Amino acid sequence: MIRLLMIGDIVGRPGRRAVKDNLPGLVQEQSIDFVIANGENAAGGNGITREIARELFACGINVITMGNHVWNKKEIINFIDNEIRLIRPANYPPGTPGKGYGIYNVNNNVRIGVFNLSGRIFMPELDCPFQSAGAILPLLKEKCNIILLDFHAEATSEKIALAYYLDNAISAFCGTHTHVQTADERILPGGTAYITDVGMTGPYESVIGVKKELVIEKFLTQMPRKFEVAAGLYQFNAVRIDIDEETGIAENITRIQNFE
Amino acid sequence: MIRLLMIGDIVGRPGRRAVKDNLPGLVQEQSIDFVIANGENAAGGNGITREIARELFACGINVITMGNHVWNKKEIINFIDNEIRLIRPANYPPGTPGKGYGIYNVNNNVRIGVFNLSGRIFMPELDCPFQSAGAILPLLKEKCNIILLDFHAEATSEKIALAYYLDNAISAFCGTHTHVQTADERILPGGTAYITDVGMTGPYESVIGVKKELVIEKFLTQMPRKFEVAAGLYQFNAVRIDIDEETGIAENITRIQNFE
Amino acid sequence: MIRLLMIGDIVGRPGRRAVKDNLPGLVQEQSIDFVIANGENAAGGNGITREIARELFACGINVITMGNHVWNKKEIINFIDNEIRLIRPANYPPGTPGKGYGIYNVNNNVRIGVFNLSGRIFMPELDCPFQSAGAILPLLKEKCNIILLDFHAEATSEKIALAYYLDNAISAFCGTHTHVQTADERILPGGTAYITDVGMTGPYESVIGVKKELVIEKFLTQMPRKFEVAAGLYQFNAVRIDIDEETGIAENITRIQNFE
Amino acid sequence: MIRLLMIGDIVGRPGRRAVKDNLPGLVQEQSIDFVIANGENAAGGNGITREIARELFACGINVITMGNHVWNKKEIINFIDNEIRLIRPANYPPGTPGKGYGIYNVNNNVRIGVFNLSGRIFMPELDCPFQSAGAILPLLKEKCNIILLDFHAEATSEKIALAYYLDNAISAFCGTHTHVQTADERILPGGTAYITDVGMTGPYESVIGVKKELVIEKFLTQMPRKFEVAAGLYQFNAVRIDIDEETGIAENITRIQNFE
Ligand SMILES: [Fe+2]
Ligand SMILES: [Fe+2]
Ligand SMILES: [Fe+2]
Ligand SMILES: [Fe+2]
Ligand SMILES: [Fe+2]
Ligand SMILES: [Fe+2]
Ligand SMILES: [Fe+2]
Ligand SMILES: [Fe+2]
Repeated sequence: MIRLLMIGDIVGRPGRRAVKDNLPGLVQEQSIDFVIANGENAAGGNGITREIARELFACGINVITMGNHVWNKKEIINFIDNEIRLIRPANYPPGTPGKGYGIYNVNNNVRIGVFNLSGRIFMPELDCPFQSAGAILPLLKEKCNIILLDFHAEATSEKIALAYYLDNAISAFCGTHTHVQTADERILPGGTAYITDVGMTGPYESVIGVKKELVIEKFLTQMPRKFEVAAGLYQFNAVRIDIDEETGIAENITRIQNFE
Repeated sequence: MIRLLMIGDIVGRPGRRAVKDNLPGLVQEQSIDFVIANGENAAGGNGITREIARELFACGINVITMGNHVWNKKEIINFIDNEIRLIRPANYPPGTPGKGYGIYNVNNNVRIGVFNLSGRIFMPELDCPFQSAGAILPLLKEKCNIILLDFHAEATSEKIALAYYLDNAISAFCGTHTHVQTADERILPGGTAYITDVGMTGPYESVIGVKKELVIEKFLTQMPRKFEVAAGLYQFNAVRIDIDEETGIAENITRIQNFE
Repeated sequence: MIRLLMIGDIVGRPGRRAVKDNLPGLVQEQSIDFVIANGENAAGGNGITREIARELFACGINVITMGNHVWNKKEIINFIDNEIRLIRPANYPPGTPGKGYGIYNVNNNVRIGVFNLSGRIFMPELDCPFQSAGAILPLLKEKCNIILLDFHAEATSEKIALAYYLDNAISAFCGTHTHVQTADERILPGGTAYITDVGMTGPYESVIGVKKELVIEKFLTQMPRKFEVAAGLYQFNAVRIDIDEETGIAENITRIQNFE
Repeated sequence: MIRLLMIGDIVGRPGRRAVKDNLPGLVQEQSIDFVIANGENAAGGNGITREIARELFACGINVITMGNHVWNKKEIINFIDNEIRLIRPANYPPGTPGKGYGIYNVNNNVRIGVFNLSGRIFMPELDCPFQSAGAILPLLKEKCNIILLDFHAEATSEKIALAYYLDNAISAFCGTHTHVQTADERILPGGTAYITDVGMTGPYESVIGVKKELVIEKFLTQMPRKFEVAAGLYQFNAVRIDIDEETGIAENITRIQNFE
């Protein structure tokens, strides 16, 4: 059995502190074999830098996935092609910097395929995630028994539909992007571990990571506000997934919420 | 102390069966004083009829709230003005049939105000929910210590921002619409019970209530599909909220998920 | 020189009457060689039937293009695969019924390629029109000197950007969908005839073809209204384009507006 | 008779040069009495500064209207409350800096009311423009016979519907925002001069004012691009409207397109 940990969108400094404080202990106490984390908000709330990626890898994260904020820190273009542990949504157009999936070794003898897709409902106009998944899966299945998808999307309908579409073809389907953990974690009929959204790892008293006063003012005035990551105590949101490495079938998915 | 139950979007026949099977027992065993339910999908997946509203009241629901599907069954226009236990989003334009709030007696001696608002992010163009809340609150506060809002909205940012905006001014803020229960129930700093989404009371193996094959086909083909409520076993999603009737402050919010 | 006529979205009975009344005379008096028309609203305001397609071909239309309303009359699925003169947006997913382009003979000795694409900004989630155009163009260029695109899209930025992208690669770029003719017809620097929107061929006193009272009521009440095609006098909107059949370069584009 | 000129969205330096080159001559040769211009893109493509507003007033513009880019240059907040010749969409929430309408003297003896509204379809979430128009009109009608609206909106349906709704209540309805002039200028049945979009006054070879290469690259890559105003020759887009100052009825609307 392989035990994965998927961490929800890490937001800014409080999110990184949450990872540093929680991850090493979790990995040891819960015998985690492999850690994936969504890092699209890791640098100041949006995007990621080389330094911050290194910082996260150093905490024990094995693969960083991204989302609609992937390009917010422009320097990512300089290192994403050389950093195979950092992937971005695979349904960006052909020719986009970086890769949408990777194959990694776990415990030296097991291979895990991780891919990242973005939704299209209420999101930027990317290639169809259903078609993209169909194109990537054969490449991964050829080499890996265990496959995890980070589907970064807004609409619950798109997330659940893609999960059923991929049920049995992948081991784990983790939704991200809304920054709120959902309470619908389960094993789908075909054996895929599922959750609509893993949630956010970032400031607790905030509007999805942002200072609440700024967001309220934005809604009240409809005038532009520069958003800032909220300060204060953090929350750490993740799911732990157990997968049979022979069959790729998930046996368990458990939600994790730690608070500072 | 007053104990409320808020039931998430009731979808079609499986959702109504879930209410019939679960509600009477819950009310008795958990000493529920008052039951609110979102009924925008109660009739065949969209809208509500007079007969179905009566059916739901007969099960023990005291107030039905609605959402973007409020007008899908046209006959609602014939009875919504005479049925004070059925409210629709208050931020429809002035002159819209029905009411956006109501004041009800609980246990003969306590009054509870319930109001319903719709979000605007990725939703129809209604009046501003922040402004609408500001206009309704004084009317309710004059007469009630306990106030509950069903905020029917898509974006987590809009839901959390409005909740912080209303924190301490209302007793309970229950999000609906995404049909997926979130795991972020809590008491906000000012004493308002909060959950981003109560979830759905409807068919379990489904895409937010709809037959999964139809939704998958819609995403794959981008051609119109007539959606049908899925058959099979149900899930029942709700939250239980305890409120001090003197202060209107919430003391506890607990998620409930029952499965057939 | 080949002279094309492109007719904007034909809406319902008034639109078809406009075609019958205007097209034969125009073809003769202005020596039109080939007629393309957008027919997505030809049947009762949305979609097209076999009978109405035949009616339009009988009036002298050589090719019918479609748009977001292509599937509204379901019977189109029964005949679109056998009717090469009827095309739908090429950027529907692979496997969709019908074709997104066709090659036709003009005056027995010249071949014209016609293709149809849908925009994605404020529109359904189809494949990328820029990528789709790039895939189709080589197929058409191999066989035709003259190529016309009906780009059915909402946002002016997407229309103008795609036109510059295709400038010199195609002979004519005709925008449709907004139902309002634009006054920016021109020859782009590379020789492509361009207009952001050809406009609508349908009822004159209407909101883009629909009874104005119904649309106003919809905006005032935000409640659903069944839209009906407006009655009364028609307007006929089209552009006439002259193309050098050796080079495929456009020499002229002229707007046409006829009123009943 | 009063003769108004309404200039479409002035974009950056090329747009301002177009105003300087064209406006004084037009005013004199065509006996223009009053000039309104949309200035939401006047400063570097987005927003307006105090200096640029002064520059435009010095060219002969009497009133500047705005749109969704009103707040892009933050300094506007410092002077909009003291500059009655600069108005922003009236359907921003109550309490927003600036005003949504103004009353001005023309030729010393006639008063004209000008108001500005933003659409909501595919646009930011403002108050309902139909309701806002209904609230403002009595204030203007009490003091002015002549009323002009700049309706800054994307969807043709919303523009035409609001125009019919206001037909006969105002003298002129000028759409802006799409940056493409439409060819549907007319007098509505009730006497209101109408055009769906006045168009753009800015760089000719551009995608609605922006360097075309940048916009094409944005569509091809779906990666963020910093947009820059295109250089090169300008186009000047406007409409001239003649209004009977006794009745407020429009007698004529004429499109104007000048090219460098
Ligand atoms: Fe995120
Ligand atoms: Fe995101
Ligand atoms: Fe619902
Ligand atoms: Fe809903
Ligand atoms: Fe159309
Ligand atoms: Fe269309
Ligand atoms: Fe503009
Ligand atoms: Fe604009």
